[in-house]
Amino acid sequence: MYIFQVHHYIKPDQIEAYKSATIENARNTILEPGVIRFEMFQDSANPAHFSLFEVYADMAARDAHLETGHFLKWKDVYLATQERKGNGDEFNAVFPAENLWAKK
Amino acid sequence: MYIFQVHHYIKPDQIEAYKSATIENARNTILEPGVIRFEMFQDSANPAHFSLFEVYADMAARDAHLETGHFLKWKDVYLATQERKGNGDEFNAVFPAENLWAKK
Repeated sequence: MYIFQVHHYIKPDQIEAYKSATIENARNTILEPGVIRFEMFQDSANPAHFSLFEVYADMAARDAHLETGHFLKWKDVYLATQERKGNGDEFNAVFPAENLWAKK
Repeated sequence: MYIFQVHHYIKPDQIEAYKSATIENARNTILEPGVIRFEMFQDSANPAHFSLFEVYADMAARDAHLETGHFLKWKDVYLATQERKGNGDEFNAVFPAENLWAKK
């Protein structure tokens, strides 16, 4: 399993453009066979801060995602709408334990 | 719905104590009726950094959680094992949309 959480910081006047492109990307990404979870959150205190929480079956699934047409299309929008470079964390699941995660 | 992600930074020699107490707390917390999700992650790059991702039906469910015996018992362990003060973010769900979240 491979878990990645990224934080995006978006230009205030580009929030809606980023949001709709990211929702479209998420709708397509969650259909990929190796994607267990792909969720998008907006900071309640800072509407220009978003976070994507991404759970893949393995690193190969993550690599495959990065080559999809929907990811590449989304990436162009993201790069045009970001205020500054994002940052992220890679995690291991502790609870629930990794053997309890599966694509629903 | 109320979504909270907290980051904990634990003393290196207290990681196992923190981890087992937090798993026990998570097992009890997820049984609370207003708790939609309560997950625990460990940073792949920094084993002393943990993150709890908590989704409640509403703020009342979060408040109720903070009064449970298992939370209060856990809090004592957490305060004894933390290296430094944690930090957190409150989020709104964008994808999936909030009406699609429910207790499983």
